[in-house]
Amino acid sequence: MLETLKKEVLEANQQLVTHHLVTFTWGNVSGYDPKENLMVIKPSGVPYEDLQMKDMVVVDLEGKLVDGTLNPSSDTPTHLELYKAFPEVRGIVHTHSEWGTAWAQAGRSIPCVGTTHADYFYGEIPCTRRLTPSEVNNGYEKETGTVIIEAFHHKNPLKVPGVVVHGHAPFAWGRSPADAIHNSVVFEKVAKMTFLSELLQGEQPHRLDHHILNKHYERKHGKNAYYGQSN
Amino acid sequence: MLETLKKEVLEANQQLVTHHLVTFTWGNVSGYDPKENLMVIKPSGVPYEDLQMKDMVVVDLEGKLVDGTLNPSSDTPTHLELYKAFPEVRGIVHTHSEWGTAWAQAGRSIPCVGTTHADYFYGEIPCTRRLTPSEVNNGYEKETGTVIIEAFHHKNPLKVPGVVVHGHAPFAWGRSPADAIHNSVVFEKVAKMTFLSELLQGEQPHRLDHHILNKHYERKHGKNAYYGQSN
Amino acid sequence: MLETLKKEVLEANQQLVTHHLVTFTWGNVSGYDPKENLMVIKPSGVPYEDLQMKDMVVVDLEGKLVDGTLNPSSDTPTHLELYKAFPEVRGIVHTHSEWGTAWAQAGRSIPCVGTTHADYFYGEIPCTRRLTPSEVNNGYEKETGTVIIEAFHHKNPLKVPGVVVHGHAPFAWGRSPADAIHNSVVFEKVAKMTFLSELLQGEQPHRLDHHILNKHYERKHGKNAYYGQSN
Amino acid sequence: MLETLKKEVLEANQQLVTHHLVTFTWGNVSGYDPKENLMVIKPSGVPYEDLQMKDMVVVDLEGKLVDGTLNPSSDTPTHLELYKAFPEVRGIVHTHSEWGTAWAQAGRSIPCVGTTHADYFYGEIPCTRRLTPSEVNNGYEKETGTVIIEAFHHKNPLKVPGVVVHGHAPFAWGRSPADAIHNSVVFEKVAKMTFLSELLQGEQPHRLDHHILNKHYERKHGKNAYYGQSN
Repeated sequence: MLETLKKEVLEANQQLVTHHLVTFTWGNVSGYDPKENLMVIKPSGVPYEDLQMKDMVVVDLEGKLVDGTLNPSSDTPTHLELYKAFPEVRGIVHTHSEWGTAWAQAGRSIPCVGTTHADYFYGEIPCTRRLTPSEVNNGYEKETGTVIIEAFHHKNPLKVPGVVVHGHAPFAWGRSPADAIHNSVVFEKVAKMTFLSELLQGEQPHRLDHHILNKHYERKHGKNAYYGQSN
Repeated sequence: MLETLKKEVLEANQQLVTHHLVTFTWGNVSGYDPKENLMVIKPSGVPYEDLQMKDMVVVDLEGKLVDGTLNPSSDTPTHLELYKAFPEVRGIVHTHSEWGTAWAQAGRSIPCVGTTHADYFYGEIPCTRRLTPSEVNNGYEKETGTVIIEAFHHKNPLKVPGVVVHGHAPFAWGRSPADAIHNSVVFEKVAKMTFLSELLQGEQPHRLDHHILNKHYERKHGKNAYYGQSN
Repeated sequence: MLETLKKEVLEANQQLVTHHLVTFTWGNVSGYDPKENLMVIKPSGVPYEDLQMKDMVVVDLEGKLVDGTLNPSSDTPTHLELYKAFPEVRGIVHTHSEWGTAWAQAGRSIPCVGTTHADYFYGEIPCTRRLTPSEVNNGYEKETGTVIIEAFHHKNPLKVPGVVVHGHAPFAWGRSPADAIHNSVVFEKVAKMTFLSELLQGEQPHRLDHHILNKHYERKHGKNAYYGQSN
Repeated sequence: MLETLKKEVLEANQQLVTHHLVTFTWGNVSGYDPKENLMVIKPSGVPYEDLQMKDMVVVDLEGKLVDGTLNPSSDTPTHLELYKAFPEVRGIVHTHSEWGTAWAQAGRSIPCVGTTHADYFYGEIPCTRRLTPSEVNNGYEKETGTVIIEAFHHKNPLKVPGVVVHGHAPFAWGRSPADAIHNSVVFEKVAKMTFLSELLQGEQPHRLDHHILNKHYERKHGKNAYYGQSN
């Protein structure tokens, strides 16, 4: 079942290695089928180089196993919360990539200081609040989804396709597993370049002027976008 | 038409990958033919590994398509402004390379603190001013050229073959597309090493003494240059 | 003799190169056989690419050569002290890996600021005290073991499988040579990411909340661990 | 003539690429024959991948061409000054390697803060003074040798086999061209790790205790050295 989506999820997980986003098995990609209300996700703890189509795990929105023989990623409940709250999202990536994780460990949102950021993320990439002891002890992974959703109370998750989870690491997403991987690569690059530019500045780092943020985001994603080929 | 220049521009775009200057399609190289007053440039949004001779786009100085079937890079108007203002320049490179972009995002010129810099850039690499909202909303890419040209009001663009665009990223150029790539690689290396040396210093970073700047630039590019082989 | 353990130690030493943990011959891995009370260790100063089964050196707990024709690693007495003091440890890795060594040279313990750390190390990775002149001049390598053991006076070495040796470099360990290599890779990654997050913070860097430290460590290593596959 | 030394110098120059110490042609290695009082050095501006035995240039101590058809490295007079002043040195390496150059551009000696440094350099790696305008304008490359030699007035160049040239970049040396390359790699690694550890510390960075500096240097290079194999 869901052979096309399984293939997309498998390939997206393999791309984590290609783009140097993971160490050992520290990352996972899922994809969502909105017609069947089912999610395909990487099995927990399996090395990327060993992954095969038959290892992909299918679960429903309550996390019940629908297809597959392996345990799904332990982060499964976080992915499910996001698909339920963000109906246009079709792919989610979680990694402990170095620069994104540095921002998470610092408990900081990534400010928008350049056009590379503005080309993909319409404004700062928010950092969640900390989880309470009770949230950690009762459904930790589900509550990780809750604090992410809180951070997007006034944001469009497709215009800011990623988040910094406080003390943990990044999540990114998109309109497909491949799109989510693309946004993960951008996230990591932006996390690095913003780190570097902040070290070059003094007390009062610049923010990108709003008119440029707007221009760059719109020329790539707006109604009259003119980046790339029309086909 | 312009088969030789197309080949140079194609190869220079491929060199962006070789020298680790780009992520995805975040960079473009152009070349200029001063006899025909025509520019060859990378098509917008096409991956470097897919680029072929026939994909190269030829435009005139007003940006009108003269040859090719794809849209030219969205940065085309910036390249054209520079060729019009800097008559000896024959190749231009734009990237979002990590260290150069860090300086751009910090809104800072790169000071000359070492002989590696002095070997190629005769003094600091200037940072442009910010664009105004009106410049951003009316011909953004053309006005990006305007602020670069302003930053070179008292500078010879062939003696300082690159610029930091405020909040954006670097441009570099040269006497050919290959020469522009060469200067881009040096730019990125200098951006990194100057970043590092600044972190090692306190409040009052050194600048390279002017007599050494002069010596290094002249022994490589001056009338009596003695670096390399005479042939 | 000890052919299985020799093979494990040989492969673990080769993994130092695979994981970019060493320059030249600056690292060594050992394995311990608790039935025979014997240790297998890399020979001193031999490049990893030349290492063969027959080069592995076997010594007893007093460091006496039991099998092999080459000198054992000069750090042999440190390894032996640790096996004597930490009875469940079966593999030890010593490297001068870049980021771990940076913490050692700064004389600092690595605080736990994120879940990547918490997944493997239950709290901060301690830094030893400095050795006294007398310790350095009388059995330097043995005394290096002594100060490591001191740093674990109130710690379980299997719950914090690594240490920063003041002014020197990291040691990591585990339930086998392969497990020790795994922990070494994590150590280096955590050393880098904690460095980066500290630079992003001001005067009062965050520590990971204890309930999250606990949760992440337990979901991977506790009685009811649910990370990975049950088989 | 000097075929053995030419081969050593050729291979050492190629090693600059293997060890990621150079960009383009920004580095050169020489070797010295004390019987013939002749130096073999890389030709100026020739890419490492094109270098052949017949391209090696032989000059006497006054810099007069003795064998070869190409111009020697423009840094030839610096190498010659060092061979004349440091009679036991048989190989010299000059690069603009990133981390070493960062210290040069900061105008700082590299303090000894760890045992990796102590294993190869007996104390700090000194930074030269700046050259005066007159030194720059009259025999710049020769005077670069002069300020290096000044920095070693009270030092044994074989116990501290490298130097930071103010505003410029590192030189390292050794008992052969291969040994000089080895020391260059260590120099770069130490330059990076000392940079990192300094950023982790506050106002008063540690220095390595003298008894450990002594111990590490002596166990590798002293009369009773016990690192490596006796053969």
